[in-house]
Amino acid sequence: MRLARNLPFILALLLTSAATPTAASEDAVTIAREWRKSHEQAIVQDFVTLLSIPNVASDTPNIRRNAEHILSLLPSRGFEARLLEADGGPPAVFAERTTPGAETTLLIYAHYDGQPVNAADWASDPWTPVLRDGPVELGGEPVPLEAPFDPEARLFARSAGDDKAPVIALLTALDALDAAGTPLSVNLKILFDGEEEAGSPHLPAILERHRDLVAADLWLFCDGPMHQSRRPQINYGVRGAWGFGLTVYGANRPLHSGHYGNWAPNPIMRLIELISSMRDGEGNILVAGYGDEVVQPSLSELEAVNAAPPVDEGLVRELGIGAPETDDRVELAIMRPAMNLRGIRSGDVGEAARNSIQTEATASIGLRLVPNQTPQYLREVIERHIRGQGYHIVYTPPTAAERAEHDRIALLDWTEAGYPAYRAPMDLPIAQRVAAIVDAVADGQLVHLPTMGGSLPLKLVYEAVETPILILPIANHDNNQHGANENLRLQNLWDAIEVYAAVITEL
Amino acid sequence: MRLARNLPFILALLLTSAATPTAASEDAVTIAREWRKSHEQAIVQDFVTLLSIPNVASDTPNIRRNAEHILSLLPSRGFEARLLEADGGPPAVFAERTTPGAETTLLIYAHYDGQPVNAADWASDPWTPVLRDGPVELGGEPVPLEAPFDPEARLFARSAGDDKAPVIALLTALDALDAAGTPLSVNLKILFDGEEEAGSPHLPAILERHRDLVAADLWLFCDGPMHQSRRPQINYGVRGAWGFGLTVYGANRPLHSGHYGNWAPNPIMRLIELISSMRDGEGNILVAGYGDEVVQPSLSELEAVNAAPPVDEGLVRELGIGAPETDDRVELAIMRPAMNLRGIRSGDVGEAARNSIQTEATASIGLRLVPNQTPQYLREVIERHIRGQGYHIVYTPPTAAERAEHDRIALLDWTEAGYPAYRAPMDLPIAQRVAAIVDAVADGQLVHLPTMGGSLPLKLVYEAVETPILILPIANHDNNQHGANENLRLQNLWDAIEVYAAVITEL
Repeated sequence: MRLARNLPFILALLLTSAATPTAASEDAVTIAREWRKSHEQAIVQDFVTLLSIPNVASDTPNIRRNAEHILSLLPSRGFEARLLEADGGPPAVFAERTTPGAETTLLIYAHYDGQPVNAADWASDPWTPVLRDGPVELGGEPVPLEAPFDPEARLFARSAGDDKAPVIALLTALDALDAAGTPLSVNLKILFDGEEEAGSPHLPAILERHRDLVAADLWLFCDGPMHQSRRPQINYGVRGAWGFGLTVYGANRPLHSGHYGNWAPNPIMRLIELISSMRDGEGNILVAGYGDEVVQPSLSELEAVNAAPPVDEGLVRELGIGAPETDDRVELAIMRPAMNLRGIRSGDVGEAARNSIQTEATASIGLRLVPNQTPQYLREVIERHIRGQGYHIVYTPPTAAERAEHDRIALLDWTEAGYPAYRAPMDLPIAQRVAAIVDAVADGQLVHLPTMGGSLPLKLVYEAVETPILILPIANHDNNQHGANENLRLQNLWDAIEVYAAVITEL
Repeated sequence: MRLARNLPFILALLLTSAATPTAASEDAVTIAREWRKSHEQAIVQDFVTLLSIPNVASDTPNIRRNAEHILSLLPSRGFEARLLEADGGPPAVFAERTTPGAETTLLIYAHYDGQPVNAADWASDPWTPVLRDGPVELGGEPVPLEAPFDPEARLFARSAGDDKAPVIALLTALDALDAAGTPLSVNLKILFDGEEEAGSPHLPAILERHRDLVAADLWLFCDGPMHQSRRPQINYGVRGAWGFGLTVYGANRPLHSGHYGNWAPNPIMRLIELISSMRDGEGNILVAGYGDEVVQPSLSELEAVNAAPPVDEGLVRELGIGAPETDDRVELAIMRPAMNLRGIRSGDVGEAARNSIQTEATASIGLRLVPNQTPQYLREVIERHIRGQGYHIVYTPPTAAERAEHDRIALLDWTEAGYPAYRAPMDLPIAQRVAAIVDAVADGQLVHLPTMGGSLPLKLVYEAVETPILILPIANHDNNQHGANENLRLQNLWDAIEVYAAVITEL
């Protein structure tokens, strides 16, 4: 509707805007800002509506509701839109909008699914968005969802920062440009993934099946947080991601810790010993062969890290930690492979603790991969390591006979989807063009980094589409991505609208 | 009522029974058995009624309901009964029944409170007793709560084994003896504690306040499991018990494990490192000075252990463990101090796991003390150890300023009540007399052991009343005491009725 309404303006402006790219960019930023200022209430309301739909990838009915809702927003913005699916996985929302005369095709990727939640840890329901005047950790209090908005206010909901904000920001930029009749400089494609937080297991099949549809000159991945300095950031890569569940066993029934303490194996101790054998407190991974495939960072990558504004001291203060786990600055630390203890569970603590020896103990371990590590090789060395610690490995809960036969049994759950890291060369021409546009919007403050610490399935995408990929994050770094009380600072949403407006009118 | 009805018989039999103690004992066992056989339905129903009242020590209203219910059962059995209280703690049920001409006063102790439950781990509600034809772990199925009962059937409920069974067994023995007109040989006192599983913090005050009331020649503690050989057992001591909560911290908000993994401290790793520094996988406690106060077992105690039937191989099979944590036989292992990981919690595992670095991780650690360890000294050496690992210790959750100031912070929760171990000399004359009676009932199969592995507040009792204490357990060893699916094997209840009948008519 908005596009149709403004079609005459667009047609009228087409030639002039194409002739003066820099002016168009400045215009686009101004147009986006003015539009946003007079539409903040509607923009926030659209965001609230999207955030209100629960979006854990395994929640099939709600995931589809998200996809259908986003799909419904696209035709009125001039897109041909459809859902792409493979093997019963969550649908990806795909849409395409051509610009007469444009030579470059840009594909913008985001994802509409979110990490699972432990609602008990949240200050408010994860899918009932609440605006607060600051971070929950700093005592942020709810404020009305009514304009005028304080730009430092934050909207709290699962996926506010990771990764529904790009959907709203991009559509708002288009609304602003269309209303002003400012044409795009690119053919624009969008792909909103519905299972990124689940490792995008169906994405490669979708991309292969729709190779022509998703063809582009550049994929722009809009995900992840901005630099901790609050300066905009472009990343040339991501770490890969995988993870596994690890359960070890004690006796087949809970035992009184008095009558059997010191005699019956304690599965919590066994799990602790096994984990300690795999990783130390400084983040070093102790599994033999774990680093076999690692390619060390190049000199130019190290120089880029060196040129970024240092944030460690500020982060130490902000996060209330006495000291980091490592002496490396954070941008270097995330260039190493990581093994993260995501969770550990056995028995109870506090008043619910019982004087018994538990029957099993479970940990969830997340892995972050760097080039050129492969999930299959890491599984191989991890399993070799666990066997080396005297464990018999099973993939389904052990039978009574197995428990009786083996002193130590480890149940491994590798069902999570994993993928390798991706890193593009930093001197890629089209990347340099995007960087120049964003740097101009950001008054020369753009931070270039070789990799994000987080993960996106870029390697899978790259292998399927053979198109360069660049990452342009928009969320505040302190958005509590993946944790409780995830949020987006409104100023980040406002800035994102302007950045997208500039990129799609000047690239 | 039953007593009143049988008063003429009792009076008539008083002299003859006092004159022939051994015959009386055999009679008492036969009388108890015959009574039980014709009253199984009522006995089980009385047990079910008692087990149906929730009994976690901190659940004040229900704890009082338990006490009032037990109190109501006593006057009809010839007792003068009352509740003893101190400082708002759970009431202890005290009752006294004198026997004309008796020279010995016996006090029987049991407790009516139970360990906290995690109902999700139970096959049925912990306070809705269910009879099954075997252990849940071996596929035991529910059977009707109707006589005739299979003696191998088990009644499942919190405190079925620990420690409401003695209440029902003792009252049934009295009903049988009273119905037959068989007099007791002792003045009988009973004390049913209401907070044993919480460490009996108010018991010393109650005992001091009612010193004369609880005076006796012997305290018989009816708690704990029988020997794993299923033979009856008398213990001359118990381990002491204490425990603490240990929480360590990471950043003040959950962090994305990609963007901060390898840089931000992982509290799970920190907790693992700290625990590993305190205890190894073989049960050895690594805290410097921890064993300073330990008195090694005497030669006669070691000989008693040596004389007990070996159960380790059978236990290894029964519990489905490949091997114990130690080379010591279980009766020796429990003579050492123990540090048991009761529970550990941080983040989530399985499908709920999130790719984030947690803000804190908590463990609950149980301690078992041996003579002459004291809680206060153990706290001192544990805190010294934790400080030696670089931790700043706090007792309330750390403030933002504390978190920013200290690299490592440990929150210790010592609020649990703790008490030392108790061990009586094995050659105590009155203990030998009780042992001879029980050994006769058990056809010479009685097992004597210097200590139980479990804990009872015997040291506190001994210091308050200066009376010898003996432990006479009646529950099956595999009663899942303290864990999920706690149960009592009916044959153990039947046997207990006979043992009590013998002891109170022959001592």
